[in-house]
Amino acid sequence: MKTFTEYLWFETKQQRELVRLTPQVAQCVQKSGIREGMVLVSAMHITAGVFVNDNEPGLFEDIWQWLENLAPTDPHYHHHHTGEDNGDAHLKSLLVHHQVMVPVTQGKLDLGPWQEVFYAEFDGCRKKRVVLKVMGE
Amino acid sequence: MKTFTEYLWFETKQQRELVRLTPQVAQCVQKSGIREGMVLVSAMHITAGVFVNDNEPGLFEDIWQWLENLAPTDPHYHHHHTGEDNGDAHLKSLLVHHQVMVPVTQGKLDLGPWQEVFYAEFDGCRKKRVVLKVMGE
Amino acid sequence: MKTFTEYLWFETKQQRELVRLTPQVAQCVQKSGIREGMVLVSAMHITAGVFVNDNEPGLFEDIWQWLENLAPTDPHYHHHHTGEDNGDAHLKSLLVHHQVMVPVTQGKLDLGPWQEVFYAEFDGCRKKRVVLKVMGE
Repeated sequence: MKTFTEYLWFETKQQRELVRLTPQVAQCVQKSGIREGMVLVSAMHITAGVFVNDNEPGLFEDIWQWLENLAPTDPHYHHHHTGEDNGDAHLKSLLVHHQVMVPVTQGKLDLGPWQEVFYAEFDGCRKKRVVLKVMGE
Repeated sequence: MKTFTEYLWFETKQQRELVRLTPQVAQCVQKSGIREGMVLVSAMHITAGVFVNDNEPGLFEDIWQWLENLAPTDPHYHHHHTGEDNGDAHLKSLLVHHQVMVPVTQGKLDLGPWQEVFYAEFDGCRKKRVVLKVMGE
Repeated sequence: MKTFTEYLWFETKQQRELVRLTPQVAQCVQKSGIREGMVLVSAMHITAGVFVNDNEPGLFEDIWQWLENLAPTDPHYHHHHTGEDNGDAHLKSLLVHHQVMVPVTQGKLDLGPWQEVFYAEFDGCRKKRVVLKVMGE
């Protein structure tokens, strides 16, 4: 059994941004030399998410509107009594989840034809990390 | 360490359908010969989900109403400018997540007494896949 | 490759409660002797969740209000025809998801600075379990 760990750093220009991670995840698996196993892609922050969906800009707009609808920006979150102003970002992170597992088969990401891995930044313009951990043989 | 990979194909009769997967997942683990480890159950499509919950038809109705409420069918999604009409299915997939990990202990799925694995089809009537990947020893 | 399995029992005093699990998960990994791998933290019930977020009491209040807003207590769920009254708890469980994977690196939980693991009880005052399964070497 082998494991291989890598950290991706992000500092998005916008407060909210989607970053397509599929190429970096594929590259990490290649570097690992692992042919059969899984790779965990997990945000290391509580105001960011990782999900798998379609690489389609119209859908991105739908996702942002939907997230804003279900976990809205709101000055009245209790969390803001700490001096923070990102309560919505915590809820958005819970909603889309902060991680995915991608199966690795014959040395490749075993994704469906339209599946792409995304990092979702909900409170950006600062340095944040995603951990990639490949496990297998 | 061993891995074992299997693909389940679905072509649901209805556009939206829940399919109980627990027996197929258990069978796949048995075939793998793996006694201790985990099995990833992951939809390979961006308009489908995989979740664990109760095998109770009344609850299924509640889940469908709830999903329609939080991620409604709507002709106005930006995604539909591509010619698609399944924007809601993408959001429903994000909401329930597209995968679960089931622990495998002493050769069996280590689920609680009421836990069952479901495939959730949000845009069916066509061929779609779920990947099962068992990893362990 | 090694695996290590442990079950945590809960019997919360309140119907709804958040329990911080990070110390127990870290202790389990230490007992396992596994230095590189992953630990699955998974609720064994369909009316409970496991998630990673911030250990901040104001945020907890926001999370509860948000969950109640998106998956409300309601006497009219179809599921209640079975005699149950916890339909909302099933939906809350779907919403936050019932499990997380925590990477293990150099013998420690590889979490970001503010990430903590929580058990979310949505229908408590009775015995319930979480399974911890560490896999690695």
